[in-house]
Order: sequence, then C-alpha cells, then structure tokens
Amino acid sequence: MTLTLADARTIITAAEAKASEIGQPMNIAVADAGGNIISHVRMDGAWLGGIDISINKAFTARAFDIQTKDLGDNSQPNQQYYGIHASNHGRIVIFAGGIPLTRDGEVVGAVGVSGGSGEQDQAVAEAGAKAPLA
Amino acid sequence: MTLTLADARTIITAAEAKASEIGQPMNIAVADAGGNIISHVRMDGAWLGGIDISINKAFTARAFDIQTKDLGDNSQPNQQYYGIHASNHGRIVIFAGGIPLTRDGEVVGAVGVSGGSGEQDQAVAEAGAKAPLA
Amino acid sequence: MTLTLADARTIITAAEAKASEIGQPMNIAVADAGGNIISHVRMDGAWLGGIDISINKAFTARAFDIQTKDLGDNSQPNQQYYGIHASNHGRIVIFAGGIPLTRDGEVVGAVGVSGGSGEQDQAVAEAGAKAPLA
Amino acid sequence: MTLTLADARTIITAAEAKASEIGQPMNIAVADAGGNIISHVRMDGAWLGGIDISINKAFTARAFDIQTKDLGDNSQPNQQYYGIHASNHGRIVIFAGGIPLTRDGEVVGAVGVSGGSGEQDQAVAEAGAKAPLA
Repeated sequence: MTLTLADARTIITAAEAKASEIGQPMNIAVADAGGNIISHVRMDGAWLGGIDISINKAFTARAFDIQTKDLGDNSQPNQQYYGIHASNHGRIVIFAGGIPLTRDGEVVGAVGVSGGSGEQDQAVAEAGAKAPLA
Repeated sequence: MTLTLADARTIITAAEAKASEIGQPMNIAVADAGGNIISHVRMDGAWLGGIDISINKAFTARAFDIQTKDLGDNSQPNQQYYGIHASNHGRIVIFAGGIPLTRDGEVVGAVGVSGGSGEQDQAVAEAGAKAPLA
Repeated sequence: MTLTLADARTIITAAEAKASEIGQPMNIAVADAGGNIISHVRMDGAWLGGIDISINKAFTARAFDIQTKDLGDNSQPNQQYYGIHASNHGRIVIFAGGIPLTRDGEVVGAVGVSGGSGEQDQAVAEAGAKAPLA
Repeated sequence: MTLTLADARTIITAAEAKASEIGQPMNIAVADAGGNIISHVRMDGAWLGGIDISINKAFTARAFDIQTKDLGDNSQPNQQYYGIHASNHGRIVIFAGGIPLTRDGEVVGAVGVSGGSGEQDQAVAEAGAKAPLA
C-alpha cells in the first residue's frame, strides 16, 4: 500500500493552489512509503535551495512518521533528539513543512514543502495533505 | 531566459506519453538553465534507482550542453573525458537519456530520463525534447 | 506488500548456511520494497569492506529490479549503462551478489552478499533468495 | 578481543524483547571493537530513519567509549564538545540510545538503538548491554 503518481499529482495540485493563494511560490515534493520521491515541482520563482529541502522534508516525515515541525520541537538544544539533523547523510529537516500521509491509519508516504516562512510552508503542506485521494 | 514549470510539465507530458506507448515506466526530470531541477515524476513501477539518474542526466546535459549519450562516447576508457563520471559529486551520467533543451539556439535547460534500456531512455527523452513549448 | 523481519531472518539463515558450507564468511543484507535495509549480519571473519557492499548490493538489486551481476554486464565500458556505478551517491554495485526478491511476480525486496569471489557471493545470495518464506 | 556474531545476536535478542515489552518497534545495531557493524535489525514498523541512527549510535558509543546520552550532555551549545555531531562524516549521534559494551573492563563494541523516545531507546539499549554473553 503506497501512493501512486496520480495521488502525488493530486497532492501537489492542492498544495500549489494554496501556495498561489498566499502568493508564495514553493517547492513541493511527495515521497512514497519507502521514503523515495514520486514527484517534485518547483513553482516559478521558488527558491533553488528549496528543491533539496522539500524532498528531504518529505523523506524526514516518512522516516520518523512525524511532522517535521514536531520533530523540530524535540530536536532543539537540550531536547531528546538534538543533533538528529546531522544523521541520515544530511537528509533530516527539523523545521515546519513536512507531513506524513496516512491511509487507513498507516503511513503511506509524505509531502514536503519549502519556499517561504515556516508558517507558509506548513500551510501549503497541510493543504496538500488534506487533498482527497481517489 | 529559462524554462517555466508550465514548460517542464509540457515536456514531461510528452515524455510520459512516449513511455506509455513503449510500455516502459520511467523517471522523467526537467532542469532549468542553472541545471537545477524544475520537476521530476516517477511513473508507477519505474525504477527507484532512476530518480537520481534522471535528475542527474538532466543536470549533466545542461552542465556540458551535450546529450549524455554523446558525452558517454567521449568518456569511455582511453577517450578524452574518461573518468568525468566521478566529478561533480557523482552528478555526471554518461549514458543515453539526457538532452539539452534549446530556445533560439541557446540552451535553456535539459530533460533526463531513466527507467529502461539506453535506447528506451533516449527515445523518451527525445519525445520530451520535441514537445512544442508555448 | 513487503518483507518482514521474520522473512529477512529466514533469508539470512539460508544464506549463512550456504556460506558455512563453502567455508567463506560473508556479509548478508536484506532490503525491503523501498530499498531500505531490514537486517544485516557480518559472519565472524567476513570483510569489513563488505558491510557497505552487501547493503548496497541489496539496494541496487531493488533499485533496478535486476541481479547485480546482470546490471554489471550492462555497465562495462562501451555498454549501455557504463558509469552507472557513480550514481545514487555511491550506492550502486555492479558485480555479482545482489538479487531481487519477488512475491506473486512483484519485487518486494532484495538480498545482497559480500565476502568472497563473485561466484561465491552469487551462490550465497541465490541460497538466500531461494529460502521459502512463510 | 571483540564481539562475535553470536554475541551480537544475543544482545539483539535481549534488546528486541525489551522493545516488544514496551510496545515500541526499534532499530537495533551492534558494532565491534573497530566500530564496524556486526549486525542490524529493523523490527516491523520501526522508523526508516532509525536504520542510520541505530548504526551510528553504536559507532559513536565505541568511537568515544561513552554512552551517547552522556556525550550529548557535553555537546549542547556552550558545552565542551558542541558541534561534534558534524564530525566523522555525519556518523556522530549525541542523544540517548548508544552504549559501549565492555569485557574485563575493556570496550569490545557497542549497541545502538533508535525508534522511540530518548528514554525508550535508552531502556532498550540497556537491556541489550546487560545480556550475558557466552
């Protein structure tokens, strides 16, 4: 049970609509149950540096089955996972914008967004995560 | 002058149609004039290992403004670029499937395809490269 | 549909038995459908350098749904995938010892073996791949 | 004097039992006196991101002959080892779950656990470290 390319496109379309609504171009990536990317788009004008970050927010959200903003709370100095961002060959992102995607209670992939403030990235990722899949 | 996300999607749609026609699921990536990915899709059932390769075929084709199969001819043992695939942090791919995209004679990006034989990858990349852009 | 840890142990036990039979200690790794390692063992006296290679033979076999020895045949100089071993961040292995594992005709993971000659690695991987799963 | 694969399995079995007892699937790895992995298991449902972390908690615990949680205390901002998690090519983990293993007062290897909270990881690693070896 994993996501299809059609699922990924549905998620990306919903996220893009939200990014356009708030007027902030974004990188949006969707990963499958194995943490491997299914699709990525960089909207016109979005950060070059956000390519890697969006892909790795999706990876991180699936790697630990947690939203990256919640992982971030636990990864500040003196918290239980401080230093985790140096693991997994630099693929761990510990700030908002990565959300696991579930189906029947099981994590089947994740969406990652990068291009704006933490709040903006999170809002766009949430819009993607809420898209109804076929 | 570079490619837009809309251009990238047009290219990917044309490449996907060709991949479906030959019955081989593919990873397809489009890079901009800076060699940076605009979009990537992995068709259902396409190789996991082709994510990295499609993205880097597009990078390579733009990095040297050459088709990856032609770079490959020059990169065999005893040829002038032998060993080039170890450069650029492992991002250089020296076999068929990466094609620079031009507009008015200038390279504005590239397409990279991975998922089948060298001939199949090349055919799908060519279909993408031929897509008429708006 | 992927492999469980119990499946991985069954595969490793069968591979270990073969390694003992031929008298060559081995590294044996099993990856899941996403290419991610489920389990690895290094038999006493097996190569340190084989840890990485066994894990990445399993990754490679799943990444391209092909035995690593067959990928190797296609990756020699002047062949269609020459240079592929520089892709995927150094995780591609192009010599014998990696075999995809299928269930109902679908690839659900892979086994990778490293510690002896190409023939020995292949024989041990085949023994693992043939283990009947529950 | 180092650990055997049989020792590693004994340690993993004890750690797995503890993980099952607390109901949290874990990645468990055992390294030898050279810091090199002897065996790794990912229990069904355990984090994908914990593969790398469990292996590197074991490496870290042996690399500095210290529990990773104690190294963590010394690696917070303004402490004496702050920044150490960026060294050793990303292999240093500075939070709970890695424990050196001793025999006759000498460090002969280490166990690393990843999959739950810091407390859970530590409890499972301790269970592994306490397993009586033959």
